[in-house]
Amino acid sequence: MPKKIKFIFVGKIKKRFWKEVEGFYEKRLSPWFVIQKIIIKDGDSSLCIEDRVRIESDRILKKVQSNDILICLDEMGKMFSSGQFAKKLTKWIESPGKVPCFAVGGPYGIHDTLKKRSDFLMSLSPMTFPHEMARIILLEQIYRAKQILNNAPYHH
Amino acid sequence: MPKKIKFIFVGKIKKRFWKEVEGFYEKRLSPWFVIQKIIIKDGDSSLCIEDRVRIESDRILKKVQSNDILICLDEMGKMFSSGQFAKKLTKWIESPGKVPCFAVGGPYGIHDTLKKRSDFLMSLSPMTFPHEMARIILLEQIYRAKQILNNAPYHH
Repeated sequence: MPKKIKFIFVGKIKKRFWKEVEGFYEKRLSPWFVIQKIIIKDGDSSLCIEDRVRIESDRILKKVQSNDILICLDEMGKMFSSGQFAKKLTKWIESPGKVPCFAVGGPYGIHDTLKKRSDFLMSLSPMTFPHEMARIILLEQIYRAKQILNNAPYHH
Repeated sequence: MPKKIKFIFVGKIKKRFWKEVEGFYEKRLSPWFVIQKIIIKDGDSSLCIEDRVRIESDRILKKVQSNDILICLDEMGKMFSSGQFAKKLTKWIESPGKVPCFAVGGPYGIHDTLKKRSDFLMSLSPMTFPHEMARIILLEQIYRAKQILNNAPYHH
């Protein structure tokens, strides 16, 4: 039975090609997961960065439920190889009564309050990526994790 | 005057959305760089992985010139933050009479002979990415590097 997996992303993706890549990987995940994707309105761009990040993180927090395992992307988070991530993901997915919930902030990242609530902070790379790209890499890595766990020929 | 930068990629990108993302970043780089992009034919998929990788790497090597600073993406390569990469890129770009040449292998990576000829092996992340995604991340990081060096507001 497909497991539930939840994503909380900040801001609608504007560029068509990013939307298409996101859709492509969501479709690839769909045989294994019931995906719940929540798009949070991004903070007003007239605000200072600090206020914008705080508001966006508050909005994310309102969508987090008590049974969510909250995994936030953060540049100070822990890095994994794809194989290590596959193991970690399995652990999260198989936690009884729990739902893995991945949150990706907006262009300026996430606020300390959200980091404190997180069960896990993870980083995709020491490099900084656009948040649209971070979303896509995350989806691809979840797909790759399933392929690794299934010993499928994708994971080269 | 725009500096020359060279890319050697293995295989045509098949999916339209990846092509579009690649085109988007190439356009963003065009004010600063004269881009030379060489697409190498990928090795026959009926070959064993070892042969395929060797053939692809030989084809890459044939396109490398003596004045190229050859930077190959490789999972065992050095990782940088975007800021560190910006500094490194500046050094490469400003080497007199030299051209930075970035090579990205096919799905199975690159052969030892190519690694040995490389001036630098770099890795984008401890995670493994599809090679189309690696190309795009590389282009985006070069664009980001220029923004960082110009103190432009992009690099959040």
